[in-house]
Amino acid sequence: MSLIVQKYGGSSVADAESIKRVAKRIVETRKAGNEVVVAVSAMGDSTDELLDLAHQVTPIPAPRELDMLLTAGERISMALLAMSIRSMGHDARSFTGSQAGMITDARHGQARIVDVTPGRVRDALDEGAIAIVAGFQGFNRGTGDITTLGRGGSDTTAVALAAALNADVCEIYTDVDGIFTADPRLVPRAKKIDRISSEEMLELAANGAKVLYIRAVEYARRHGVTLHVRSSFNNNEGTIVYNAPDVDPARDPENARENSESPVEEPLIAGVATDLSEAKITVVGVPDIPGKAAQIFNIVAKTGANIDMIVQNVSAASTGLTDISFTLPKSDGQSVLTALTAEQGDVGFKALQYDDQIGKLALVGAGMRTNAGVSAKLFTALYEAGINIEMISTSEIRISVVTRADTVNDALRVVHAAFGLDAESDAIVHGGTGR
Amino acid sequence: MSLIVQKYGGSSVADAESIKRVAKRIVETRKAGNEVVVAVSAMGDSTDELLDLAHQVTPIPAPRELDMLLTAGERISMALLAMSIRSMGHDARSFTGSQAGMITDARHGQARIVDVTPGRVRDALDEGAIAIVAGFQGFNRGTGDITTLGRGGSDTTAVALAAALNADVCEIYTDVDGIFTADPRLVPRAKKIDRISSEEMLELAANGAKVLYIRAVEYARRHGVTLHVRSSFNNNEGTIVYNAPDVDPARDPENARENSESPVEEPLIAGVATDLSEAKITVVGVPDIPGKAAQIFNIVAKTGANIDMIVQNVSAASTGLTDISFTLPKSDGQSVLTALTAEQGDVGFKALQYDDQIGKLALVGAGMRTNAGVSAKLFTALYEAGINIEMISTSEIRISVVTRADTVNDALRVVHAAFGLDAESDAIVHGGTGR
Repeated sequence: MSLIVQKYGGSSVADAESIKRVAKRIVETRKAGNEVVVAVSAMGDSTDELLDLAHQVTPIPAPRELDMLLTAGERISMALLAMSIRSMGHDARSFTGSQAGMITDARHGQARIVDVTPGRVRDALDEGAIAIVAGFQGFNRGTGDITTLGRGGSDTTAVALAAALNADVCEIYTDVDGIFTADPRLVPRAKKIDRISSEEMLELAANGAKVLYIRAVEYARRHGVTLHVRSSFNNNEGTIVYNAPDVDPARDPENARENSESPVEEPLIAGVATDLSEAKITVVGVPDIPGKAAQIFNIVAKTGANIDMIVQNVSAASTGLTDISFTLPKSDGQSVLTALTAEQGDVGFKALQYDDQIGKLALVGAGMRTNAGVSAKLFTALYEAGINIEMISTSEIRISVVTRADTVNDALRVVHAAFGLDAESDAIVHGGTGR
Repeated sequence: MSLIVQKYGGSSVADAESIKRVAKRIVETRKAGNEVVVAVSAMGDSTDELLDLAHQVTPIPAPRELDMLLTAGERISMALLAMSIRSMGHDARSFTGSQAGMITDARHGQARIVDVTPGRVRDALDEGAIAIVAGFQGFNRGTGDITTLGRGGSDTTAVALAAALNADVCEIYTDVDGIFTADPRLVPRAKKIDRISSEEMLELAANGAKVLYIRAVEYARRHGVTLHVRSSFNNNEGTIVYNAPDVDPARDPENARENSESPVEEPLIAGVATDLSEAKITVVGVPDIPGKAAQIFNIVAKTGANIDMIVQNVSAASTGLTDISFTLPKSDGQSVLTALTAEQGDVGFKALQYDDQIGKLALVGAGMRTNAGVSAKLFTALYEAGINIEMISTSEIRISVVTRADTVNDALRVVHAAFGLDAESDAIVHGGTGR
């Protein structure tokens, strides 16, 4: 008997009919002889509706109360899902984050999981029931208060339960067929990826692929959880996100075997992601003396902004000055500009430039580690398409480039084709994504 | 410093504007130097909307899951109310039934309170905060499951908190100005009652007055809680429901003084209530031998039906047969008829008559205990208006009569006037009632 954790996003449980459809799928999984734990998001847009209500009451809702409010959403969907399953003749019990033992720190709105004690979930399974757990929510032991996990919280709930219960697989149901070599809305010939390593998946997620949240992938990687990203609208196999071969074979021999085989089968490139949510700040005329970069990024770090790419120009010997550019989410732009301007005299730079018309393209694949030609092929493809590269950054399994925002989609199609990722026919695309 | 528990029904928190209005009222109570605990119902029709959703998923929702679902309603209203108060610069914290220590038995949908341990509520008050508690919901220690208290549950939550916290008063906010001598929608000249004893209030509630639920009044009476029923739409004084003078004067001298004075000030009649929700069953031709009535009502009791009035005709000596009539909620009618029919041979009655076109009128007042003329005055008023009386039942502080359904509203107006209850002008009526 396998233990399967399934996660259903908001678009999969948007109304009563969808809930019944999902219930049927869960019952089929149970009937096939598996133990089933489900993490479920709030119905459709209901979280946004609750947020609207909060903002009608006050422009800045108290975080503790906002968490209390928002967790009502999953309470509704999980109870409806459990009663739907019961009406089909199978035992099912819903559990809040607190009942399921999702213990977090006290940071309302973005709590981190500190412990998972799913005793009641395990008991329900032992009694033959299907356990339905509210996604996105947790509980702080110190304050006794309800917390929420922030963006992608339901994915994290599912993965954390899978890890704590030692599940065989964690299935992430969504409204697309899996992870694609590129966003099928931008590249119709994008191919579904059958298998991808968690480190490649991390790079794709960090570079704009929106199907899986980076946090859930990190959690899965750290705890050796195998993910299966698939559609709740059909029965197709989706994408398996497997872990590095350091998984203990004794714990899960089948999984370990798959992992050890994977590097051989692996294609050179897993996929290409693009991101239009970032801006570029250039600090112009920085004195080229030791410690200046550290000083600048200490100022930036104090704002809490997430820096992505950093490029420092070669210093012009004649002036003794250099330029430092970095990318960051547009939403962090203003606070970083303000912080740097306040310290301009101390740092001694000449000016700041802000550019929010950039696009980022990231090519991801474990295969590129040992293949020196990947960069050359990428730059050639972009050059031949007349697309200018403004910044470059590389990791062992990723190359990112920054271009003008209005050329990044062209760049995506050109690169996707150049690396032989195009499928023979167009992918099918559904709309929307869940929480 | 007084401790005041306030309860707001669904119509008082129907939308964001109403919530802000209620928040302002709560803040004013706090500013006046009181400690404030609030029990709140779900917003407007949201409980019905959740029920609709459940019935879209399954015709018979599992009770545990239905409770999990419905409790989302108060979670939403209490969080919004707390954040609204906080936005006005006062500390406020919302608590679920479980967090507030509302411990119940495990009967989902109609749980009874077995203990109230409001430690977190008391702590919040001690730290100067206003405590907002979800009405209608509780928690069973044995199963660890969420429960709901059934109809009028939020009133019960408020009264139970008032009792456990030894509150000075429990204010029940509603959309009418208080308890009236009759329903103002039926008798425009009905007068607001300033003070009424809890036993009179019990009789009125049991006989169709819908402003307060009988269960909350019973709880208040048993625990010596003074109720103040008033409108959330104005600042008028409402109706004080006081307890019998057996309240310990040492515990609450002011309350005890009021109570000991009250019987003197009390008017003869507190009010008149009518009820169209009952039906009458007559068991025709019952052998007039000992034990037959017991046999019949044992059969009825097994169906779980709530019997109200019972009348047994004087036996006709010639036949040795008698008729027994009783009233009960129309919703219980079918099951009782079925149960009695099944035992007809054993009991030996001749036939059953079912009549759902009856109306009940109840005249309530502690003053009638010592006033023999009340019955005569009641019967005379009805006779002069040409209204036929079909059944009569009396208690120490109540006289009930059954008439045809289509004459009961006329009866109400006639009796209201005959006992001098009419005001000099019409009462103002708002629509709807909360949970």
